[in-house]
Amino acid sequence: MNKELNLVDFLITADFVVAMDADYSVYTPGAVAVTGDHIVAAGPRETLLATYAAGEQLDAGNAVVMPGLINTHGHAPMALLRGLADDLRLDVWLLGYMMPVERDFVNSHFCWLGTELASAEMIRSGTTTFADMYYFEEAVADAASQAGLRAVCSQTIMRFPTPDATSYDEALRRGRDYIQRWKGHPLIVPSVAPHAPYTITPELLEAAVSLVLEFDVPLHIHIAETAQEVEDHRKEFGMPPVPWLKKLGVFEAKTTAAHCVHVDEGEIQTFAHHNVGIAHNPSSNLKLASGIAPISRMLEAGLNVGIGTDGPASNNDIDMFEELRLASFIAKVATMSPVALPARQTLEMATIMGARAMHIDDITGSLEPGKRADLIVVSMENTRHQPYFAHTGESVYSRLVYATHAEDVRHTMVNGKWLMRDRELLTIELPALHAEANALAGKIDTFLARREESVLSKLIAIGGVAQGKTFEIQVKVRHDDPRSLEKVFFTSDEITFLRGSNRRQYDTYFLFEDRWGSVLRYREDEIFDLQTKDLIDVIYRLTLTTMKKEREYGNSVLLSRSRFDAPATRSRRFYREYFQPQREVVVHKERRRFHVRFHGTDFSVNLDTVLEPEGVGSFLEVKSRTWSQQDAERKAGLICNMLELLEIDEGAVIKREYVELAGVRQQEQQDQ
Amino acid sequence: MNKELNLVDFLITADFVVAMDADYSVYTPGAVAVTGDHIVAAGPRETLLATYAAGEQLDAGNAVVMPGLINTHGHAPMALLRGLADDLRLDVWLLGYMMPVERDFVNSHFCWLGTELASAEMIRSGTTTFADMYYFEEAVADAASQAGLRAVCSQTIMRFPTPDATSYDEALRRGRDYIQRWKGHPLIVPSVAPHAPYTITPELLEAAVSLVLEFDVPLHIHIAETAQEVEDHRKEFGMPPVPWLKKLGVFEAKTTAAHCVHVDEGEIQTFAHHNVGIAHNPSSNLKLASGIAPISRMLEAGLNVGIGTDGPASNNDIDMFEELRLASFIAKVATMSPVALPARQTLEMATIMGARAMHIDDITGSLEPGKRADLIVVSMENTRHQPYFAHTGESVYSRLVYATHAEDVRHTMVNGKWLMRDRELLTIELPALHAEANALAGKIDTFLARREESVLSKLIAIGGVAQGKTFEIQVKVRHDDPRSLEKVFFTSDEITFLRGSNRRQYDTYFLFEDRWGSVLRYREDEIFDLQTKDLIDVIYRLTLTTMKKEREYGNSVLLSRSRFDAPATRSRRFYREYFQPQREVVVHKERRRFHVRFHGTDFSVNLDTVLEPEGVGSFLEVKSRTWSQQDAERKAGLICNMLELLEIDEGAVIKREYVELAGVRQQEQQDQ
Repeated sequence: MNKELNLVDFLITADFVVAMDADYSVYTPGAVAVTGDHIVAAGPRETLLATYAAGEQLDAGNAVVMPGLINTHGHAPMALLRGLADDLRLDVWLLGYMMPVERDFVNSHFCWLGTELASAEMIRSGTTTFADMYYFEEAVADAASQAGLRAVCSQTIMRFPTPDATSYDEALRRGRDYIQRWKGHPLIVPSVAPHAPYTITPELLEAAVSLVLEFDVPLHIHIAETAQEVEDHRKEFGMPPVPWLKKLGVFEAKTTAAHCVHVDEGEIQTFAHHNVGIAHNPSSNLKLASGIAPISRMLEAGLNVGIGTDGPASNNDIDMFEELRLASFIAKVATMSPVALPARQTLEMATIMGARAMHIDDITGSLEPGKRADLIVVSMENTRHQPYFAHTGESVYSRLVYATHAEDVRHTMVNGKWLMRDRELLTIELPALHAEANALAGKIDTFLARREESVLSKLIAIGGVAQGKTFEIQVKVRHDDPRSLEKVFFTSDEITFLRGSNRRQYDTYFLFEDRWGSVLRYREDEIFDLQTKDLIDVIYRLTLTTMKKEREYGNSVLLSRSRFDAPATRSRRFYREYFQPQREVVVHKERRRFHVRFHGTDFSVNLDTVLEPEGVGSFLEVKSRTWSQQDAERKAGLICNMLELLEIDEGAVIKREYVELAGVRQQEQQDQ
Repeated sequence: MNKELNLVDFLITADFVVAMDADYSVYTPGAVAVTGDHIVAAGPRETLLATYAAGEQLDAGNAVVMPGLINTHGHAPMALLRGLADDLRLDVWLLGYMMPVERDFVNSHFCWLGTELASAEMIRSGTTTFADMYYFEEAVADAASQAGLRAVCSQTIMRFPTPDATSYDEALRRGRDYIQRWKGHPLIVPSVAPHAPYTITPELLEAAVSLVLEFDVPLHIHIAETAQEVEDHRKEFGMPPVPWLKKLGVFEAKTTAAHCVHVDEGEIQTFAHHNVGIAHNPSSNLKLASGIAPISRMLEAGLNVGIGTDGPASNNDIDMFEELRLASFIAKVATMSPVALPARQTLEMATIMGARAMHIDDITGSLEPGKRADLIVVSMENTRHQPYFAHTGESVYSRLVYATHAEDVRHTMVNGKWLMRDRELLTIELPALHAEANALAGKIDTFLARREESVLSKLIAIGGVAQGKTFEIQVKVRHDDPRSLEKVFFTSDEITFLRGSNRRQYDTYFLFEDRWGSVLRYREDEIFDLQTKDLIDVIYRLTLTTMKKEREYGNSVLLSRSRFDAPATRSRRFYREYFQPQREVVVHKERRRFHVRFHGTDFSVNLDTVLEPEGVGSFLEVKSRTWSQQDAERKAGLICNMLELLEIDEGAVIKREYVELAGVRQQEQQDQ
């Protein structure tokens, strides 16, 4: 070996070296010299061959050596939840699937395992650095560093209890401990992530900012992912999220803001002024129909916009090459200009600009002497890459952005260490990892299958359910003029009027063809004052019963069945999509409701007129509920007495419920 | 072997068989039996193992057997042009690059070679059937059938001369010959493609329709790809393209319409009424910023919408799995609904519905007994596919659409014949193919590099150029009140006024730092009547000269230089993007132009006032041009005489042109 040559650990040569430095240097052919954890030189092949001797020389041939891709936003452990539920609305997906499963399954080991799974995919698809935001972030950091990846790992802080903290104070303590232990790690930058403006409080936010400023670590946050979020924020705080966050001092920190789909020009200027890095997530924003972020405008304003995959549960892979192509495509259609986000600028976003967005461009993002050796070798041998046009210097970028697949990545190096050679992972055992991930998926399948078995368990899964009294005594009589009965309640000696209200009830019955004949009623109950007719309140409730009565007694006035109530905190549309009923019946009615005392026992009396469907009619209902069968039978007797007093023949009692009466009527109307 | 078993050629088993039949059958595990060119059975593995014995049994394990993907729109030979030019406006891309290169390079062998290149990529990415539209379509059909792919190959017919036909009559004759030779081929369905409403004539269209009806073959056409196209069509014909095509009888044919990005509800209903198949091209529509087609509405209206890659020059790969994912993603963001185009429906579009859109669903698109054996085996072993959730029947679709890459396709079979096994192509020799494609790209590179060398050759490439007279005699004198000179032309005995006009000239000079100092002037020349002041005409012209005079004579009134003129049929923006000048100077001026006769020789005399930039001033110009040097010198002498008559000192003559005067002024203004 020539004694004048400088010795380096690795010399990698290839037909193309794409440096992504300030001059956009492309060396054809080129070479990169690496020693220890850093790059010694990147330049023309002949120059480097004449300057360096290497412990190992890798001649990659028809390939590109380039900086590893930088994934600026994700939730790595959610790799374990990919494909769990797709093509759902954000709320159904999040509240119906992700959060219930997370509540039961996410622990430190889950996060470790999920990160290892995500790391395998990232290394194989050319990502060398990622930004993460999840729970048990120390486990994420541990798994990433063992896989050999560079990462900014942010411990999530929310105002709600999370799988790893019962309060945000606990989350902050956890964050502090974690930062103290990991700060200075060669691969991991610890960080905290106040989750999003709509899941935090100003106090929590201020505490998080003072924590990251104390340790000089970055801060990661979701901002303006959906139009709804921004609208809600405006309503609540009189301004969109960005000025609100600015006021709370968030942008004093080295911030990376994920999504920013719905931001205006002023907010973009605020980002620019405070050097807030942006993480643009094309697949996720499309798949969840969040919208298209105004990336071209942000770039014009000088923002550092990186590209991210978001969590693999909403993507569903972790493939930065796919995101690159998508970022360029959607910028073009969003501006209706095919010259928007050309290939070179797109690649820049995924490398050096991404590093800037994560505030770590001093160590990674380009092939320059002194930077950490985070690089990938991408083959140009696939048919997709043929032919090659050399007449423009842009061809190599266009090939990388428009025609390269993750599978073209042959070798991946982070911090001067090979993580993949010839597509073989060197730090992760795939078969065991896949097996463990699938075993866990099996348990989640069982959990969900059990839940899906009954409407009840799905109802319980989304929370707030209370079981109602089992025994129900009810009488329903058709009556042309139920209001004529009213005077009895005010004039009879035997009946005492306690209180009353006028109601307008909009009921939607979701019917299920399960073995219980489950019926889930979604009710909007508008309550008016009986006298003044003022609207007093609107109550939204879910009530789960069954069509099949468990038992019927005597004159059809007593039945026993399970009954579950919950406040309906979400929309009818949500419940429809989440529960997926086989059939739906809508009943609107006007109800005058009286609470009366009869022979010392309280009853509800309803005087109802069904408005929709038309032609169902008007009714008197007397009702009571109890936990005790004996009490139920006693009350059933009392109701019979009350009917006599009201001069109603017991034979006139109708055994069907409104959902049935309306269902029949609905069918008749359709048949006409 | 059990004697009761029926013998078939192939029995393919896998953990998942996705049939894409009317019931969306999924067999886990499943099997498909194939004999000759067709499917004998698809069903549960155990059932098929108990029924059939196979010449060859393939146990694919953790994989999906499914119908091959159907690419409903493309231009296969353009694989040879992929990456030639990207991130350009459609007109610059098409008129500046694609068409000039096609004019010089596209021949029968080019089409054969390009189709083979595209076929290699399609087979390796799971496409078994494609729709094509290009020139020399018989070569496309030949290459596709030799590769073993199924294809509907449409001979393009345009009103313009094409690389394969000097007139549309010739194209129609070519189409008829081609259909007659290929009709009945086991793999190829011949067809014709009247290119698009804006490139055809009603007569051409009617002839094409009667041709396809005569032979009962399908018809392929581009419709409403861009908003501009639709707007232009409305202006010219008073209606959008679809009703116009309907009126001309196009939809009487078995039509496949590509793009349909800008169609309204009425047009969708027309498609539905006539069973027009739609080819949706997500990547191309995004990359060229054409827009997002209203696919969700089309599907609601019951249209058969397939998915296509379009030509690889605007994509840049031919990867149906990528298009699947994109189709679903953009439908969601276009409707702002994450439940739009769920995974199963997306896969349907790429299989059986695509076959319907191409009017060949009787033979392909699903795994059903009697259909041709067009199938692929897709591995589910990649980390991207882990873990697998079985709790919903949709998971297999979601995996295929959201997390599968082209590289997961292990085996491809068309018409009962294996085209790929274990990712090895069986009908195409890749290394030789790549080498030939790259050799051709080298020639195109040389052609373009030579063209790029000079502004002139780029100007010639887009057509219409004529060389102007070489010798130019011109005098320019600053004059505070040039109009005072006017009377001389009307009163002098020596000068005869011939004719005149008033002009307002908006000139943009594109300056190039090439070795000639090329100057390309884009002029909008508004011509007004000298007396009535009515606007008579607006002329758009390009004029290429050089800053460096080839020769200057005498009192700076005579020079020799090359000069090229062309009508400017496109916008200033087009020329700017196409020519990419280093600098630009804008000059607006008012010109009174006189044609006069002086001592028997004609001259132009211009009395100019420069309006922009301000402060340049007013001028008298006297000009003449000639091919002869001797004549030029004679005229130069005459101009000196004329100056004397006008009492202008020869020393006052300004040697600079307007572009220079304005350029200096522009610089001064910027410096202030």
